[in-house]
Amino acid sequence: MYKLYDFLPSGNCYKIRLLLSQLEIEYERINVDILENESRSPEFLKINPNGRTPVLYHDGKYLAESNAILWYLSSNTHFVPKDNYEQALVLQWMFFEQFSHEPNIATSRYWISILGEESKYREQLKTKRELGYAALDVMEKHLSSNNFFVGDKYSIADIALYAYTHVAEEGKFDLSRHHKIRNWLNRIEAQENYVNIKQS
Amino acid sequence: MYKLYDFLPSGNCYKIRLLLSQLEIEYERINVDILENESRSPEFLKINPNGRTPVLYHDGKYLAESNAILWYLSSNTHFVPKDNYEQALVLQWMFFEQFSHEPNIATSRYWISILGEESKYREQLKTKRELGYAALDVMEKHLSSNNFFVGDKYSIADIALYAYTHVAEEGKFDLSRHHKIRNWLNRIEAQENYVNIKQS
Repeated sequence: MYKLYDFLPSGNCYKIRLLLSQLEIEYERINVDILENESRSPEFLKINPNGRTPVLYHDGKYLAESNAILWYLSSNTHFVPKDNYEQALVLQWMFFEQFSHEPNIATSRYWISILGEESKYREQLKTKRELGYAALDVMEKHLSSNNFFVGDKYSIADIALYAYTHVAEEGKFDLSRHHKIRNWLNRIEAQENYVNIKQS
Repeated sequence: MYKLYDFLPSGNCYKIRLLLSQLEIEYERINVDILENESRSPEFLKINPNGRTPVLYHDGKYLAESNAILWYLSSNTHFVPKDNYEQALVLQWMFFEQFSHEPNIATSRYWISILGEESKYREQLKTKRELGYAALDVMEKHLSSNNFFVGDKYSIADIALYAYTHVAEEGKFDLSRHHKIRNWLNRIEAQENYVNIKQS
């Protein structure tokens, strides 16, 4: 029995919904409205003291951090490679996502399209824009000689990077010169049991 | 044959030196002076297009991202638990480290003690301070009922979190009220083959 503590607009939460769909795992979705501070309530902090979504409940236990949840769910499936070095490369790209990509691209989207406060964050957005494009350029370069991020096969590394890249335009990132990224987005959207970010 | 592309003051690089020492693995250390922009040179960008240290070279292959390198090196050792859920918890804490801890605590230390530019970053440091203490508080709470981060055994999750926590004071974080964290730092420093951040 799986439960997902989930905020629908969050790309981090969407990663888990996408993988659960592709693994054909049924789950109960528990809405946590972060705009209403529900991820900072005393009840939620018992589940995740770091006060963030998503959280997965399974088998009496809780797990936080989207990319750790992807890892847990995909263990021994074809969504993660078997080779030790390729597994480490999956993690390499997932740490890249959380350190170099998400704080810039997801945060820009959050400020601009979810909070609607672009002018309030104008100065910080300049830095986010520069660092966000740097991350997109690293991805574009990698995809110029690879169809997917690791081992030329769709994996949780692609899911992790897809989540906020495919909605980067909501943070005013223009992907028109990133042809390889746009082709890769299309390849992901063609995968079996793909669901979009709006589907719960 | 292992090579580590390494910048001595970097906590991310130190994680790898500490684990390599504890695994008793010999390696060649290649100095990359990030203050001289050596991690952005055309040669280095061929090794890691994201332009960051550390990078591990082993068996003809390169691997970036400190926590992915910890994972790779510790595979099938007692530095990582065998149980699938506990492995996911190790990753949970490592993603917490890169997202909620490192960008605040390590960056404050970098601006204040490595660049010596505290006044230039005064405004940003206020936010970093608040978020950094929030991360330390999450750690303190966890350590109030655990000796280590996962499964009550020393693991790469502890190494990842130790690297910047033990030098947090260089970023002007005061750990005097974080008793559990200070005891945990002592437990780590008592581990076999421990090396400090200044030892290369």
